[in-house]
Amino acid sequence: MKVGFIGLGSMGAGMSRNLIEAGHDLIVYNRTRSRAEEMQSLGARVADTVSEAAVGVEALITMLADDRAVQDVIFDPGRAIESLSERAVHISMSTISVDLSRRLAKAHAEKHQNYVAAPVFGRPEAAAAARLYILSAGPSEAIKKCRSLFAAMGQRTFMISEDASAANLIKLSGNFLTTAVIESLAEGFALVRKAGVDPQKFLEVLTESMFSAPVYKTYGAMIAADKFQPAGFKLPLGFKDNRLLQAAAEEASVPMPMVSLMHDRFVAALAQGLGDADWSAIARVAYKSAGL
Amino acid sequence: MKVGFIGLGSMGAGMSRNLIEAGHDLIVYNRTRSRAEEMQSLGARVADTVSEAAVGVEALITMLADDRAVQDVIFDPGRAIESLSERAVHISMSTISVDLSRRLAKAHAEKHQNYVAAPVFGRPEAAAAARLYILSAGPSEAIKKCRSLFAAMGQRTFMISEDASAANLIKLSGNFLTTAVIESLAEGFALVRKAGVDPQKFLEVLTESMFSAPVYKTYGAMIAADKFQPAGFKLPLGFKDNRLLQAAAEEASVPMPMVSLMHDRFVAALAQGLGDADWSAIARVAYKSAGL
Amino acid sequence: MKVGFIGLGSMGAGMSRNLIEAGHDLIVYNRTRSRAEEMQSLGARVADTVSEAAVGVEALITMLADDRAVQDVIFDPGRAIESLSERAVHISMSTISVDLSRRLAKAHAEKHQNYVAAPVFGRPEAAAAARLYILSAGPSEAIKKCRSLFAAMGQRTFMISEDASAANLIKLSGNFLTTAVIESLAEGFALVRKAGVDPQKFLEVLTESMFSAPVYKTYGAMIAADKFQPAGFKLPLGFKDNRLLQAAAEEASVPMPMVSLMHDRFVAALAQGLGDADWSAIARVAYKSAGL
Amino acid sequence: MKVGFIGLGSMGAGMSRNLIEAGHDLIVYNRTRSRAEEMQSLGARVADTVSEAAVGVEALITMLADDRAVQDVIFDPGRAIESLSERAVHISMSTISVDLSRRLAKAHAEKHQNYVAAPVFGRPEAAAAARLYILSAGPSEAIKKCRSLFAAMGQRTFMISEDASAANLIKLSGNFLTTAVIESLAEGFALVRKAGVDPQKFLEVLTESMFSAPVYKTYGAMIAADKFQPAGFKLPLGFKDNRLLQAAAEEASVPMPMVSLMHDRFVAALAQGLGDADWSAIARVAYKSAGL
Repeated sequence: MKVGFIGLGSMGAGMSRNLIEAGHDLIVYNRTRSRAEEMQSLGARVADTVSEAAVGVEALITMLADDRAVQDVIFDPGRAIESLSERAVHISMSTISVDLSRRLAKAHAEKHQNYVAAPVFGRPEAAAAARLYILSAGPSEAIKKCRSLFAAMGQRTFMISEDASAANLIKLSGNFLTTAVIESLAEGFALVRKAGVDPQKFLEVLTESMFSAPVYKTYGAMIAADKFQPAGFKLPLGFKDNRLLQAAAEEASVPMPMVSLMHDRFVAALAQGLGDADWSAIARVAYKSAGL
Repeated sequence: MKVGFIGLGSMGAGMSRNLIEAGHDLIVYNRTRSRAEEMQSLGARVADTVSEAAVGVEALITMLADDRAVQDVIFDPGRAIESLSERAVHISMSTISVDLSRRLAKAHAEKHQNYVAAPVFGRPEAAAAARLYILSAGPSEAIKKCRSLFAAMGQRTFMISEDASAANLIKLSGNFLTTAVIESLAEGFALVRKAGVDPQKFLEVLTESMFSAPVYKTYGAMIAADKFQPAGFKLPLGFKDNRLLQAAAEEASVPMPMVSLMHDRFVAALAQGLGDADWSAIARVAYKSAGL
Repeated sequence: MKVGFIGLGSMGAGMSRNLIEAGHDLIVYNRTRSRAEEMQSLGARVADTVSEAAVGVEALITMLADDRAVQDVIFDPGRAIESLSERAVHISMSTISVDLSRRLAKAHAEKHQNYVAAPVFGRPEAAAAARLYILSAGPSEAIKKCRSLFAAMGQRTFMISEDASAANLIKLSGNFLTTAVIESLAEGFALVRKAGVDPQKFLEVLTESMFSAPVYKTYGAMIAADKFQPAGFKLPLGFKDNRLLQAAAEEASVPMPMVSLMHDRFVAALAQGLGDADWSAIARVAYKSAGL
Repeated sequence: MKVGFIGLGSMGAGMSRNLIEAGHDLIVYNRTRSRAEEMQSLGARVADTVSEAAVGVEALITMLADDRAVQDVIFDPGRAIESLSERAVHISMSTISVDLSRRLAKAHAEKHQNYVAAPVFGRPEAAAAARLYILSAGPSEAIKKCRSLFAAMGQRTFMISEDASAANLIKLSGNFLTTAVIESLAEGFALVRKAGVDPQKFLEVLTESMFSAPVYKTYGAMIAADKFQPAGFKLPLGFKDNRLLQAAAEEASVPMPMVSLMHDRFVAALAQGLGDADWSAIARVAYKSAGL
């Protein structure tokens, strides 16, 4: 399948590599061109402009940092939406807002293009290993066409709804579940440490009994060790996703006090200079407020 | 081993049965005598008084509802602490406060008795199936003597600390991690439902991808279905444990805002008449406040 | 002084009237023209377009509902910033975001126009009675020129800073102080009512002892009576201001948990259908969650 | 009137002095005897024991630090309840729990003694100047007998209810309103300071416009100056009152999220070593979490 791929960050790099290996014909674009050129040796063509990556492809995948990046690439003058053919499909895999997803659906429909939201669960290692969980939503006909692409990138694809933005909502909600785990661990470890109990013992008891899920192991280990570098997922990105969820909740008139609590924690973490750390460094806020 | 067992509720019934089956010599006491008599057919002797269950045993196990019940049984005039032999061990398996655990440790030490805290993770089914996780703490010599008992009741025993109350602290912290999962699911489902996304689809995506741990499945299903009967663990008990954790956190000067949030949720749930429901019914509070 | 005045809502009507009475030469603009025509009989000229209200005036006052309205009026093609003379001053009295205030300062400076932020404390009655408190900030030379205008509209003008946006920040913070009073009263009355104490007695004790300030009397009376109509200040406006404060706090990396709590209350109030009520109707959320 | 007075702390000293000056016949007791002896020169008799202060008096006033102190004095073997005559009245002016107030009402009734709850609003200066606000509740006949005493100590006495504990509930609620003001100021000043606005200017604008009430002036000044010594009301006492309110709210099933937030702030303040500061030092927690 002829595929344009925009965004070769730590996630996009692995995903595009897997598409190439599965035999798809890729044309890649990245703002920092050198990352695109690495793909050339694997058989991808390198686009000089966003437009070039969109012209003539059957599917255009975007995997970018945030709403602004996606808007720039799709809507700016001379950008993808002008170059994409009718009936081609834009597969938006970035973690973006529910609102932008809705606007994209509308804009592509007006151009007689297809739009599928397909955000993912999984960290860069999972992207590299084609082990992502893909949350797809949009017109079912369009999703069907993307099947071979999803199969090349993930271990499982969920079909969520005809309404594309539902996938984005679920993606953001999933990230929130993870922040709730992080914060609950943070408070628990703060208490246990201050009460003089060995945090490694606490970690062992949790992760080898009821809380053996990876999320407890991954973040529990960082929090127990009070060590948040290197960052698997940077704190400002976690904050961004929390804000996108708040915006969706506000629009739907759903009070989410735990989301608000996470908001405060992220802000405090940034105020305390943790912008380069892993998002689980919100535990430092709990530690500090406990006088640790 | 000659064992006294006090408290034959939904947890204690399964635990004592497993001890008998493992060949231990049990004398059981329960406030409602009929539950004790059921054990008689399995080979246990029935004590008429608490004191009788404590006289001459090597180990006395308590598995009761709350601090007050444990205090009554141990400290009231004519109660267990007067009857227990020197060098016998009181194994306190109830979910009690850190503070009471400390007072028990001190009181037993003064009587030259041993005290081991051994609260458990696991619901009644796990108790019946001898699949509990046992969190033991106290003098290591005393814990060693209890090994065969723990092996008969649980799938794994952790040795946490020489300080008995550390086990109670970890038990309470573990319950808190579960409430955090429940609340995060509650808010997520409220959002998803109000945004018009099928809650069963949301449940499927979560539990078949990143959130496959049992805690997400068990509570996710109840919350998705908005059905909180029959109660596996009653809401007032969850509230009690949250309060015990707050007391421990306050004593250790550890601010735990998520624990405070759970406090508010439990109070609201009781105000809204959910005292007989499963503790995951705090999701109803989220639903209601979202106008669902 | 020759003054353009844009926005004749419940606040702007009184303010512009007071300017006319003080002898200033007003040209007024309002989207709904009929409200502007009422001013005609008092001696104001009516502008057909925003631009007309800005051409040739020494000062242009905007008193509009929100950021969007101010942006439309100032920045849209053919709007005020194009028509305003060099050295004229735009006095922005609306409750707008810190961010927009900054952008206005910059944009006017580029046009060699002056910009003064002058948001106010006070409700429509105070506007009508020229009893507003005016929070002015911006270049001191420009503020000086506005003195006679401020004197005609308010009982006191504060000079806050050379940085215009500081006035907006203080205005938003002041509104937040009021929401905190409302919420604390709401929780207090919920408790007192549920404990069977007469809410009117509680109101009397508070407002005739330590809490005699108008804010406690005004909102206390509404909350005690559980009656939030007619709305002095509508709930969605209070919510908007809270959001603007959150945005400012986020930008400055200041965690404000009480502001987050108010956010949740406003969202819940809207979810529960209180969009037409006074902002103190967030007390209904407290009442409902207490089962009242 | 013949009056026993127990508790000559910073509040009780001024109150008892005013009673003496009004011509009442006082017998005073204080744990630290020297403080009682100071009263001797003014005409009071000094009791060697609690019991001595209760025997034969028409009214016994207690003004003590907390529940425990009141319980000790009233209920301990050989204490006041045994010595007080039938028909004498115990006037409990300390800030105690709703629950203890109820138990006192019951215990005194069983002894055919009267019980009036009469907690106060006002700091030591107000006590010295006989400017307290007195919140009385209990049997109206009993309250009537106390009128001349109240008149000697306060500027105004409110009659709240026949149910004595209602006065304690209102007293605790009033203190909570003050903590809400403190926290809202704390967050506001944190924001304003971090945004580079002069906190003294912010203080001036607030207290000379809408927020001129004493509570804003007193605490605003301390928070603006970031100076919390000397302590007018110590932080642990504020924390205690917040806890008593939480207990009352829990019993009445009223969720009070702002009270929970204050709880977290007090715990954090203690964790950060602010136990000797004025309770408004919870602002330090806000400052620190904002990186100030």
